[in-house]
Amino acid sequence: MTDTDIRPNETAVRLAPAGDAQLRFIGTIHTPWTDRKDCPRQGRHDGPICRLVLDPVWQPALTGLEAYPQIEVLYWLDRSRRDLVTQSPKSDGSITGTFALRSPVRPNPIGVSRVRLVGIDGPEVLVRGLDCLDGTPLIDIKPDRCAFSPQVPPKPGDTG
Amino acid sequence: MTDTDIRPNETAVRLAPAGDAQLRFIGTIHTPWTDRKDCPRQGRHDGPICRLVLDPVWQPALTGLEAYPQIEVLYWLDRSRRDLVTQSPKSDGSITGTFALRSPVRPNPIGVSRVRLVGIDGPEVLVRGLDCLDGTPLIDIKPDRCAFSPQVPPKPGDTG
Repeated sequence: MTDTDIRPNETAVRLAPAGDAQLRFIGTIHTPWTDRKDCPRQGRHDGPICRLVLDPVWQPALTGLEAYPQIEVLYWLDRSRRDLVTQSPKSDGSITGTFALRSPVRPNPIGVSRVRLVGIDGPEVLVRGLDCLDGTPLIDIKPDRCAFSPQVPPKPGDTG
Repeated sequence: MTDTDIRPNETAVRLAPAGDAQLRFIGTIHTPWTDRKDCPRQGRHDGPICRLVLDPVWQPALTGLEAYPQIEVLYWLDRSRRDLVTQSPKSDGSITGTFALRSPVRPNPIGVSRVRLVGIDGPEVLVRGLDCLDGTPLIDIKPDRCAFSPQVPPKPGDTG
């Protein structure tokens, strides 16, 4: 579960095992990066093509996704420790709260990336803009909120 | 687990129980909406103030968050069914894949909202822009990727 040692001034907390809700992995992400040190810190929209390979049962759930030039990808950062409340990413003794960082080290290590949709090929979605390791478990795909228009009329709370 | 009936042309799949990874709720979201029909379909940055109430153990993890005018909030849509691969949100028989919608009905019902940070008061974070029900479990807070500058130098993959 852990792949980082604690640096000076970082703080871990003791926690009971997580078990409030269960995730189901829906596929696997394939990227060029097999070692954490090679991953970019932030994905770039001119970065290499990465492949989201869905379990076949979910292939019909891609219907209509091709209309969106940008999509959000959620994935599970399965090698990250989950018990740090403060971190010192510069290793200089300064501290930052976990929720003020986009570090993979967080109580629920879910990565959220907005990526460019390059194409869809059967159960595979090709994108640019990811920064995660090859083999990262995929948990969701959504149209990007910036590009998204709901398919249905507004509800009462939508009007000011 | 389910709160919606299947409409014409919607497709559900049979799935084994989810259990690939476990979430830990970090707090609770308080909003003005206690019934799904009153929730806005999309949050607005001029919408009402909502409160993210953290479990006290996570309060130090907010250190530094005040610097970000926009934050991302992840939450668990605990009343949604998880087995639909296609949906018909207009109820007109047209179908759209689950991954081409931002519907709460999805294999891993995680909501991602970009919201305006209004203030931080101890373990409570005040925001505008949410659209979820009162009592929704909170799973993560991150600086918004658009506003975020990493605190550390680029890594090899960051340069083109």
